[in-house]
Amino acid sequence: MEALVIHAPGDLRVEDVPTPELGPMQLQVRVRCGGICGSDLHYYQHGGFGTVRIQQPMVLGHEVAGVVEAVGRDVLGCSVGERIAISPSRPCGACRYCQMGLQNHCLDMRYFGSAMRMPHVQGAFRQQIVVEAHQAHRLDDDVSDAEGAMAEPLAVALHAVNRAGPMLGKAVLVTGCGPIGAMAVIAARRAGAALIVATDLTAHPLRKAAQVGADETINVAEDPAALAKYAGEKGRFDVLLEASGNERALKGALDVLRPRGIIVQLGLAGSEMSLPVNTIVAKELELRGTFRFHEEFATAVQLINKGLVDLKPLVSATLPYRDAARAFALAADRTQAMKVLLDFE
Amino acid sequence: MEALVIHAPGDLRVEDVPTPELGPMQLQVRVRCGGICGSDLHYYQHGGFGTVRIQQPMVLGHEVAGVVEAVGRDVLGCSVGERIAISPSRPCGACRYCQMGLQNHCLDMRYFGSAMRMPHVQGAFRQQIVVEAHQAHRLDDDVSDAEGAMAEPLAVALHAVNRAGPMLGKAVLVTGCGPIGAMAVIAARRAGAALIVATDLTAHPLRKAAQVGADETINVAEDPAALAKYAGEKGRFDVLLEASGNERALKGALDVLRPRGIIVQLGLAGSEMSLPVNTIVAKELELRGTFRFHEEFATAVQLINKGLVDLKPLVSATLPYRDAARAFALAADRTQAMKVLLDFE
Amino acid sequence: MEALVIHAPGDLRVEDVPTPELGPMQLQVRVRCGGICGSDLHYYQHGGFGTVRIQQPMVLGHEVAGVVEAVGRDVLGCSVGERIAISPSRPCGACRYCQMGLQNHCLDMRYFGSAMRMPHVQGAFRQQIVVEAHQAHRLDDDVSDAEGAMAEPLAVALHAVNRAGPMLGKAVLVTGCGPIGAMAVIAARRAGAALIVATDLTAHPLRKAAQVGADETINVAEDPAALAKYAGEKGRFDVLLEASGNERALKGALDVLRPRGIIVQLGLAGSEMSLPVNTIVAKELELRGTFRFHEEFATAVQLINKGLVDLKPLVSATLPYRDAARAFALAADRTQAMKVLLDFE
Amino acid sequence: MEALVIHAPGDLRVEDVPTPELGPMQLQVRVRCGGICGSDLHYYQHGGFGTVRIQQPMVLGHEVAGVVEAVGRDVLGCSVGERIAISPSRPCGACRYCQMGLQNHCLDMRYFGSAMRMPHVQGAFRQQIVVEAHQAHRLDDDVSDAEGAMAEPLAVALHAVNRAGPMLGKAVLVTGCGPIGAMAVIAARRAGAALIVATDLTAHPLRKAAQVGADETINVAEDPAALAKYAGEKGRFDVLLEASGNERALKGALDVLRPRGIIVQLGLAGSEMSLPVNTIVAKELELRGTFRFHEEFATAVQLINKGLVDLKPLVSATLPYRDAARAFALAADRTQAMKVLLDFE
Repeated sequence: MEALVIHAPGDLRVEDVPTPELGPMQLQVRVRCGGICGSDLHYYQHGGFGTVRIQQPMVLGHEVAGVVEAVGRDVLGCSVGERIAISPSRPCGACRYCQMGLQNHCLDMRYFGSAMRMPHVQGAFRQQIVVEAHQAHRLDDDVSDAEGAMAEPLAVALHAVNRAGPMLGKAVLVTGCGPIGAMAVIAARRAGAALIVATDLTAHPLRKAAQVGADETINVAEDPAALAKYAGEKGRFDVLLEASGNERALKGALDVLRPRGIIVQLGLAGSEMSLPVNTIVAKELELRGTFRFHEEFATAVQLINKGLVDLKPLVSATLPYRDAARAFALAADRTQAMKVLLDFE
Repeated sequence: MEALVIHAPGDLRVEDVPTPELGPMQLQVRVRCGGICGSDLHYYQHGGFGTVRIQQPMVLGHEVAGVVEAVGRDVLGCSVGERIAISPSRPCGACRYCQMGLQNHCLDMRYFGSAMRMPHVQGAFRQQIVVEAHQAHRLDDDVSDAEGAMAEPLAVALHAVNRAGPMLGKAVLVTGCGPIGAMAVIAARRAGAALIVATDLTAHPLRKAAQVGADETINVAEDPAALAKYAGEKGRFDVLLEASGNERALKGALDVLRPRGIIVQLGLAGSEMSLPVNTIVAKELELRGTFRFHEEFATAVQLINKGLVDLKPLVSATLPYRDAARAFALAADRTQAMKVLLDFE
Repeated sequence: MEALVIHAPGDLRVEDVPTPELGPMQLQVRVRCGGICGSDLHYYQHGGFGTVRIQQPMVLGHEVAGVVEAVGRDVLGCSVGERIAISPSRPCGACRYCQMGLQNHCLDMRYFGSAMRMPHVQGAFRQQIVVEAHQAHRLDDDVSDAEGAMAEPLAVALHAVNRAGPMLGKAVLVTGCGPIGAMAVIAARRAGAALIVATDLTAHPLRKAAQVGADETINVAEDPAALAKYAGEKGRFDVLLEASGNERALKGALDVLRPRGIIVQLGLAGSEMSLPVNTIVAKELELRGTFRFHEEFATAVQLINKGLVDLKPLVSATLPYRDAARAFALAADRTQAMKVLLDFE
Repeated sequence: MEALVIHAPGDLRVEDVPTPELGPMQLQVRVRCGGICGSDLHYYQHGGFGTVRIQQPMVLGHEVAGVVEAVGRDVLGCSVGERIAISPSRPCGACRYCQMGLQNHCLDMRYFGSAMRMPHVQGAFRQQIVVEAHQAHRLDDDVSDAEGAMAEPLAVALHAVNRAGPMLGKAVLVTGCGPIGAMAVIAARRAGAALIVATDLTAHPLRKAAQVGADETINVAEDPAALAKYAGEKGRFDVLLEASGNERALKGALDVLRPRGIIVQLGLAGSEMSLPVNTIVAKELELRGTFRFHEEFATAVQLINKGLVDLKPLVSATLPYRDAARAFALAADRTQAMKVLLDFE
């Protein structure tokens, strides 16, 4: 069985890896489709992000869908042949945070394809994988593998929207329209936002944001002052979903957020940000981090299964996993790519 | 100019009424379409509801849309010919509750077509009306008068959903699928509910609930035990939107609400309800009242204008206002009518 | 080793019971003091409450403090001779609700001295008990056993106050000033309530409520209209902590609760309550159940240890456990008793 | 009548100013005591703070108490001789934010002694002042003028605590123990915090923090690593009340805040802060600004009147207003002064 193993920046190999044995509460899954995430790209391009660095070979990937091949003997309600999206999240269930319902902050999290701990947690870009039964979420027949693979980034966006609180009727600004920003547009719309304005520095992601529901898109590289029309009466937006990780995007939005406006920071930054804290104080803004998800994975699959969200416009290309280098290069090109998928069959 | 004036139960007359003078911050509007609300029906059938009784002739109606005919001299941003939905809500702006942002609890509210205070506040079932500029919400060209007239009941439903807190991913039970219950289905879906089950005692409203987005509908008259499948593990639903005003509907739902589940009570009851308070205590349920709306009227019009909700399936018939008796009789017939509209032209 | 075993209504016996073996994560504790709770009284007087009935002999008691006699081999940070308050709550940690941080709704809860499940969970009115290490909360040297035994009802009150949301500056009405109502006064005051009015039908509990911090006490048996002065402008109170389980107390309070006022229902009722649901709707009140506690037990002990609450005025008497009949009779007499404690040494 | 008028940095003069005429809803007040606030100090030392600068002579002061000398003809419930604390806040009541209940964000605020708008709003360091009736809050007989003058900074701290959400049982870190930080300790304790740790760089404010209720004080200048003991399991504190305006204080606290921890930023900074946004993201922290107060002024006076807070330890000195230079110099000396008061009689 083959997998995509990162050894060092730029050194991504197709390698044979063993399939683990199937435990009683586990499923063996034939992986069919996997999405390349920003963190996969960071491992590939830079060997990591922030303080996280690859220190040993690691299978990449945490956005995958597949077909159940074998069912552990104690698993109920799942059968061979079932198509599933796989949640990459395996919290311990017992630590302080799991017992508070904050599983995404688990003290002993094992998240697929993550170098945050040693030994690294191996990822899901592989032909075959063994997962816990609770990681499997059934896909309806009319849902594609690609959509199933996108349940994970949708869950990230749904969690971000949940972090913002009630969204019905709200005016929302989304800064940064990469895959996560575009998913944030979808999630905010699904949650009832009445106005969604999306900004980016590049035309392609803005086109996609418009396609998935943004009411207005602004290219702030071309028209840096275009947001100013929303600055009246201390600011028009109730919520900022900041998905760029760009200090200027965040700072530029403070003037168009109303007092008590909520900023949900999705984007990771390359370094510290210099922020006008006094503006945050005087307008009583709230800057909230958002990190992964927990119950939102199930919600993502429900919404996909029911056709309540449409993720298809975000698929830029699907390439065979053996063309990973080409796929990663394409995924890194913001002028033409949104979500790039790998085909594992 | 003619209006529909209620004098006593069953005594609804088409009468000439004067058009008030236009103030500097007001608009004169030609009313084109009005929706018959449950409270209009109660005035017509019973002369009131609860402790509220008609004590003097009163123009009915508070769900209307029309065209601006004249604009007060200090009104900005509104011009003759503009099509608008009219919010019937006129809070004082100065009292304790207005200053808390709870305008729907204004100590000096003047709500169109309401006998709650003396003298009664005259309603909007009339050919011409003068309103405050802040009551007018512009309709897009492709939105019908009927949809505009339904902004008010949609605002009621949106407010009810807001009272329930964040809705994204939630499992929601709606009991009672009259016009407000059906609007609650629409609002909950728009706000991101992942599962919506609707119940009623009659087939027609259930068909409509399914049409506007309910995942499952249950006729509890025919199949009283059908909800039981949701009772496992202390209950499956996160939220109950109770729109029937029926004690049995509310009590029957307690077993399928999970601990900490939220009940939003929309339906007014004929009398006191006998409730198993110990169940509310032991499951830590929350029973929350919901009353009218405030900022949700603007949200309703935004969602209608953008096509983010579809109210058209709820229109059962549109009749000339001079056929009011027939229209009210139809509106009262749950076996065939959902929302009945009056044409004022 | 002796314990207080209930066999049937009125049939409470001092019996020899075995001490269980000590597990590796457990503590063996010499019980020194136990408080008689309303539920203990109900078992004693009526054989149960609501639908719960004693079906087999059961050791009563869940409010106890004692001294550690032996420490399981894997327990860290606890030593023989340590004085502790014991939380009676043992959630499973693994079920749906434990994983949501709602351990008080655990699907497999084993709460000391409760007949809610079969076989019943034996209680803590015994000379010696074995508990999980996580149930033990260390008492400071200057804290009495009696105060330690009252950590449990204080935790119930703290949880009720938490259910009400932020309390700082709020106007709070407490109806029913038995031990739980009085503890609710203490908890609301500690949480920053600016005005606390307490009502009861009897003089003694009102004296105690005043002693522990109520700003005003009202005997509604003697002066049924005294609350009316708080009815202006739709009502003065932000929060009602209803600790009587009496329908008239709850209904009488609706007129003095402001719109959006919050009712936390602590008191269990003898039967269903007939409630004016339309008032709840029109004022958008929120009726919230509250049930036991989780993290609040630790908070209770912290507050007691630091002298931030004073529970001593609530101790009516301490009797030897062999005088249980007399102690229970006294505990049932609202004209002279608040909290009655049993001495197990 | 004399007032303290700032003309330029360091140029604070005692000048004769006229007393305005008394309007029908106003009170004329003889000012007796005024507290020097950090913003008064900034005007005096630097001519302003942030982007705010003195552009015309302005009476300083917004923390005052006095005695009613004359009552406007339409004012109810207030009489000559009454002792009052004066809220410096005069929101317009009509703007978008006032109508949302966010009066501290009023678009037309007139706050005593503030150069934020032109012409500046004259302050309250004067012998006589005319105020709106709603600004007056009656002081009990046993409350000193000094305590009355401190209602304003206490209101700021209460608002900050309200911004943090429920406080009962929480572990709270307060960084910076100047007058506002110390008030934050008092407010957090009153609201039920179970653990309060306070840090500063100077001994005197830490002694005061301990005196008003901090459980532990840490001099981070002397012992920079002392907080580390709270860093286990991703951090121990639920809430940070940041009252120093110091970037290092804020950054140093991120490691000891638990995931989902809440930071309330009270302290204004001299410039932008460089912040590790990725830590905020990964731990899902929330950085919330807090600005002035609204309903908390009334709460502050209630708590003072009832003896539920003790502000007296924070009074460092009371000097005649004609010794303003000396008073301001003392107020600026963190090694010996907390709150310095001016006597206007």
